[in-house]
Amino acid sequence: MASVGLVNPQRMHFAEPLALQSGARLRDYTLVYETYGALNADKSNAVLVCHALNASHHVAGEYEGQDKSEGWWDNLVGPGKPLDTERFFVIGINNPGSCFGSTGPMDVNPDTGKAYGADFPVVTVEDWVDAQARLIAQLGITQLAAVLGGSLGGMQALAWTLRHPERLRHCVAVATAPNLSTQNIAFNEVARRAIVTDPEFHGGHFYEHGVIPRRGLRVARMIGHITYLSDDSMEAKFGRELRATGLNYSTQEIEFQIESYLRHQGEKFSEYFDANTYLLITRALDYFDPARAFGGDLSRAFAVAKDKKFLLVSFTTDWRFSPARSRELVKALVDNQVDVSYAEIAAPHGHDAFLLEDTRYHGVMRAYFDRIAHETPGA
Amino acid sequence: MASVGLVNPQRMHFAEPLALQSGARLRDYTLVYETYGALNADKSNAVLVCHALNASHHVAGEYEGQDKSEGWWDNLVGPGKPLDTERFFVIGINNPGSCFGSTGPMDVNPDTGKAYGADFPVVTVEDWVDAQARLIAQLGITQLAAVLGGSLGGMQALAWTLRHPERLRHCVAVATAPNLSTQNIAFNEVARRAIVTDPEFHGGHFYEHGVIPRRGLRVARMIGHITYLSDDSMEAKFGRELRATGLNYSTQEIEFQIESYLRHQGEKFSEYFDANTYLLITRALDYFDPARAFGGDLSRAFAVAKDKKFLLVSFTTDWRFSPARSRELVKALVDNQVDVSYAEIAAPHGHDAFLLEDTRYHGVMRAYFDRIAHETPGA
Repeated sequence: MASVGLVNPQRMHFAEPLALQSGARLRDYTLVYETYGALNADKSNAVLVCHALNASHHVAGEYEGQDKSEGWWDNLVGPGKPLDTERFFVIGINNPGSCFGSTGPMDVNPDTGKAYGADFPVVTVEDWVDAQARLIAQLGITQLAAVLGGSLGGMQALAWTLRHPERLRHCVAVATAPNLSTQNIAFNEVARRAIVTDPEFHGGHFYEHGVIPRRGLRVARMIGHITYLSDDSMEAKFGRELRATGLNYSTQEIEFQIESYLRHQGEKFSEYFDANTYLLITRALDYFDPARAFGGDLSRAFAVAKDKKFLLVSFTTDWRFSPARSRELVKALVDNQVDVSYAEIAAPHGHDAFLLEDTRYHGVMRAYFDRIAHETPGA
Repeated sequence: MASVGLVNPQRMHFAEPLALQSGARLRDYTLVYETYGALNADKSNAVLVCHALNASHHVAGEYEGQDKSEGWWDNLVGPGKPLDTERFFVIGINNPGSCFGSTGPMDVNPDTGKAYGADFPVVTVEDWVDAQARLIAQLGITQLAAVLGGSLGGMQALAWTLRHPERLRHCVAVATAPNLSTQNIAFNEVARRAIVTDPEFHGGHFYEHGVIPRRGLRVARMIGHITYLSDDSMEAKFGRELRATGLNYSTQEIEFQIESYLRHQGEKFSEYFDANTYLLITRALDYFDPARAFGGDLSRAFAVAKDKKFLLVSFTTDWRFSPARSRELVKALVDNQVDVSYAEIAAPHGHDAFLLEDTRYHGVMRAYFDRIAHETPGA
């Protein structure tokens, strides 16, 4: 299927500080974003796509000189694709704190003249949503047709309905959860400890030392990667296959193919991802918990979103954000008599399934966006 | 219930080298062991207990000056307990490669006059069982009433039936598996990478540098610990409970109780466990795979054990060594028309359940050892 074609990231600068959940302020920041398709006359066909841990504003399409898209959701977003850019104006946005262009830890802290490093303020899902809302307003869009996201991106889509319910009509939240489980937080914490205790982390100010805490980043990514895949899909893909023809009897060399794969994933990640961003983003995951302000009552938390419409999707083998977590959300919405559709997709790929092309999954997404298009004059 | 009382670890030296699976030899080694109860006249009531990753020969009882047992299976082994030391002569043994007294990486390599460090030969479950068999022979025991172990210890109990079937009557293997799954290997590999890439590991020869790769050990233990507990038991014990009265909005400080708990576990472990031993033991886990020599056919692997009797126990919430893995073993045994009992215990504690006191679990263990006692004249 065709891609959205050549795309160009754009930058928008915000001179007015952003007040953060922590009480701190982010002053003088820039957001990077991309758009695909055309905004209709009454600006009613815009869909915002929120990214998860290691993604960015680059959702779909190719950059100059590329013959293949590296957009992280290119299989979903494009002309004739489930989120059809011939009907919708799609916006990909990079969150503050990221290492992919929006203001983040690698940028200069205007208060000190040096890179923020570990002093970049802690940002939450709610902060991101507020930053996104400003950009959407600047684009002249008063109400989004939908906000869409998977995983951590799904949390942002949910948070939109709670913080800015009047500014969207639909929330599409895939492979997400109303908060992290204890086990989720535990894995995040181990990953953070691996980074923070790497001697080359230098308390988060490693840029000044001209080094990168690669060892920690590698371990963090390896842990993360295990949790993104299902036990069965790892079994099917790698099993106990050996790398060499026989065992080497070595504790440090690679014996099994899965070891080679994980080391490769860790290596790649450590070459492009920023350590401080990793800490910030895992913390945003940990903190997200809309029920907290309501004594743990998720139904009360969603009362404010009662006029919104929702599609939730989960995947049977996702043990990071299991279907049970999506069902908690469905229950809270049903308690509020909200218009909610829910699909539990039998897919073997674990949490990563939300990024993959799966007929049933994409069928559900296509049908839902068709419905939104029918409700949207001129889409 | 009473403990076995005061115990003393004993040492046995072996001058004859041990031929290892890798083709290497372990020369001139010592094993540490403990015994509880009395060997009967015909030496038919001996039960060998094999330890898992971070345990030792110290299964039960107190050392001089202790008022409480630190034995890792003291709740199971003692007078009147499920493995009743008034009927059985119980032997706890420490494996070569360990850091708890038997010859291991911290000991002097007779070939170099320096600590073995990373040059300690890679040992397998089969090597351990061979070393254990020598010690049992030295004690004048020609046939054990049973070999018992949980987790990695269960793998040793299984390996006894394959390598020395004539030298035991019963195999009691708890919370174990016929081999590690891909995911199990993956977690081991991440833990090893955390250790090996710690700059204070020094290629495994850190003793000479007067340092310890504590950072790596901490991360390794944190990862391990998450996999020992069930998602639900972590949820029940820690949930999303905060350490302080509110959020601190910090990426490096502790926010959630689970983080505090994991850091504490990592810290404790790094103070007593040897990094090279960790590598060796996780590799022994990775390598165990009795079906490998039979083209993956577990039933054929167990043909040699057809006259043995087995008890297998698994725990419903154990996601490290799930009940499905024990059922693979049951099937292979049934295929050989072996006398096998199997109990799948509904317990909330995940893999750690095998170390805990649970009425149904201990009831099964008691009944099975009663049966063994009835079959054993003078027990």
